[in-house]
Amino acid sequence: MKTRIGVIGLADRGSGMLGILLGMEDIDIKFICDLNVERLEKAEKVCHEKGNTSVIATTDAEDLFASDEIEAVMIFTSWNAHVPLAIEAMRHGKYAAFEVGPAQNIGQVYDLVKTYEETKVPCMLLENCCYGERELMMKLMIQKGVFGELIHVRGGYMHDLRYLANALETGHERSFHNLYRTGDLYLTHELGPIITWLNINRGNRILNLSSMSTKSIGITEKYASLYPEKPLKFAMGDLTTTMLTCSGGETILLTHNVSNPRPYSRGGQVQGTRGIWMEDKDAIFIEGHREDGKEEWEPVSAFSEYTHPLWKKKEELEGFGHGGMDYLVLRAFLEAVRKRTQTPIDVYDSATMLAVSALSETSVSQGGALQHVPDFTSGRWVVREPMPKSIYSLDEIHEDLFEGETLTL
Amino acid sequence: MKTRIGVIGLADRGSGMLGILLGMEDIDIKFICDLNVERLEKAEKVCHEKGNTSVIATTDAEDLFASDEIEAVMIFTSWNAHVPLAIEAMRHGKYAAFEVGPAQNIGQVYDLVKTYEETKVPCMLLENCCYGERELMMKLMIQKGVFGELIHVRGGYMHDLRYLANALETGHERSFHNLYRTGDLYLTHELGPIITWLNINRGNRILNLSSMSTKSIGITEKYASLYPEKPLKFAMGDLTTTMLTCSGGETILLTHNVSNPRPYSRGGQVQGTRGIWMEDKDAIFIEGHREDGKEEWEPVSAFSEYTHPLWKKKEELEGFGHGGMDYLVLRAFLEAVRKRTQTPIDVYDSATMLAVSALSETSVSQGGALQHVPDFTSGRWVVREPMPKSIYSLDEIHEDLFEGETLTL
Repeated sequence: MKTRIGVIGLADRGSGMLGILLGMEDIDIKFICDLNVERLEKAEKVCHEKGNTSVIATTDAEDLFASDEIEAVMIFTSWNAHVPLAIEAMRHGKYAAFEVGPAQNIGQVYDLVKTYEETKVPCMLLENCCYGERELMMKLMIQKGVFGELIHVRGGYMHDLRYLANALETGHERSFHNLYRTGDLYLTHELGPIITWLNINRGNRILNLSSMSTKSIGITEKYASLYPEKPLKFAMGDLTTTMLTCSGGETILLTHNVSNPRPYSRGGQVQGTRGIWMEDKDAIFIEGHREDGKEEWEPVSAFSEYTHPLWKKKEELEGFGHGGMDYLVLRAFLEAVRKRTQTPIDVYDSATMLAVSALSETSVSQGGALQHVPDFTSGRWVVREPMPKSIYSLDEIHEDLFEGETLTL
Repeated sequence: MKTRIGVIGLADRGSGMLGILLGMEDIDIKFICDLNVERLEKAEKVCHEKGNTSVIATTDAEDLFASDEIEAVMIFTSWNAHVPLAIEAMRHGKYAAFEVGPAQNIGQVYDLVKTYEETKVPCMLLENCCYGERELMMKLMIQKGVFGELIHVRGGYMHDLRYLANALETGHERSFHNLYRTGDLYLTHELGPIITWLNINRGNRILNLSSMSTKSIGITEKYASLYPEKPLKFAMGDLTTTMLTCSGGETILLTHNVSNPRPYSRGGQVQGTRGIWMEDKDAIFIEGHREDGKEEWEPVSAFSEYTHPLWKKKEELEGFGHGGMDYLVLRAFLEAVRKRTQTPIDVYDSATMLAVSALSETSVSQGGALQHVPDFTSGRWVVREPMPKSIYSLDEIHEDLFEGETLTL
């Protein structure tokens, strides 16, 4: 039987994800939903073209929540709607998946957790980078102890998005947030994998953070160049750094920088008592690994034995969004829906990511003052059950699941 | 007439610097001083071998302070003695230079500044990396506006010093500090150049900082492997990160990591509204610089036109300590002594560096709590006079001074 889902939000990201979902033979998209009729009709046409002629197109998300036809709701809307829609889906007994974005305040994060604990319906922040090739490779290397005991990890979202400065005209929501808010509002691409590396919410937790933003120049200048007759001053600092401490004694560093010219990077770094990986160098140093004994970097390719099994099928993944990560994160969620198991990124992981973004904003507003990050597990993090065994598991990679057969992802 | 100096502290660093000083024909080393007679006699022998047979070797620093024969005292002692000895030298009317190290508390930093303001005798933290090839190149590129308006800079001291774990036996002071203290105690190698890049104390100042340390494993494990019968628990966190805000709206990130296996790096990064340099990639991206228009890095060598004039004589510098930086920082200080001018790193720059290390320790002890960094200039930073024009100037690089003639450094 196919997994029956509804999709809400059909702008750029939603229509892209819809395209990937339509290619999955075991998925039945029962509903598509968007407030914008034009986008809705365009998506409906795409569904029809791909052979799904029974899809119901609606502008009212309540139609999805009320339906007995679907098992899960996938939310690709604007940031503000992610958590409220996920909560509503869970209240109606439907698995909820929602796209990357910040929490708008810490209260809604508590609400999300409370809804899960009342309903026991899983929800998942669809952090695709948890399934990135390098990120999964690092998880495997960490699990195998290659880095020794972890002490420090880094990541970031460094992406010149000044071209979106015209989005106040075209309606891209990120620009509205950038106009009024400052702090790290887009940190899950790095914090998602970091949570898996450090076993956050599973014997470890984030304790405190401090966050500092620079002045705001990049987007403001870009906007002024596009609309010299009506310049606007954007609030978003060009670059935000956030430091976090963990109960396990590790520290984390996050960087957000979307307003300045630079090559794209997620700035990953994993450092332990035996060695270090640095994404920006695409290099690793592990004590004793080099045959010549030199204290010099080696290319990551020298450690290809640690490629995650999912990425040994790289050529199959390349046709999908963001080099395959989008496909994998969707499959990870949909497998949990089909099996009625916990999602590999669960409500606590999702809440942690959401909370850190909201608290970054708080800390920046206080000049970098220390903020305590809540334990959303209410103490369960010290005695968590392992996640269900799956090829998509992120608490532990189960290499044995990949043995002996060719997988159909 | 030769510049007449005294040298205090003749252990590893001091004897190395003494060797460089002995090679300078315009310098007369009148005194050498160390509490350790063995070290003192060894250094005296070296002086004699190099033709300085009139040097006075003493275990009493008061002999130097009381002498009318010397114009400057150069302090290469243990960290704890740097500031007290510098203060004593200034009180006796002698220029004071002292080696890299942390302040032990914020009070002694105020004392240093007060002594300068009472005596008007300059002092200088001998931060050699201010004269590093890359660091001076960045200063020149920044001055010429290549990076646009600066928003964020980074640096660090990432150097696997675990081999010093046996220093509790051999007496190397860093290990004693590492045994009892945690925080970034060794940040001047990056903060020195950063101060010059951001014009700190000259129209800009550091406002606040937050500092977080990881658990301490690296040195403790190394020590236990060397002395399994008497293991010790070192306090120094393996890695410390410090974020700082500036009144100009820039942020700074510093990293201290001396306890884990990794290739050496000072982790430099300069980022502005037009581009970015990253030391670990040895690469630069400047908007519009690539002929192919790609959003990809270029090697630093593509910007060799910005090599600082001092480093165009690289082959002459290579014979000296740390690839020439030691020679340059010594010459910079000695030129100021000879000309009776302000030192290019002045008491306020030195105080800022010292204070940040002490406040990093404070912040770490409070879990990362925000610390205010004092304005040691007492407001003068908003109206500072330019520094004396010199080939060693760090507030501004004067390329015209290098025109037309071959310099003798």
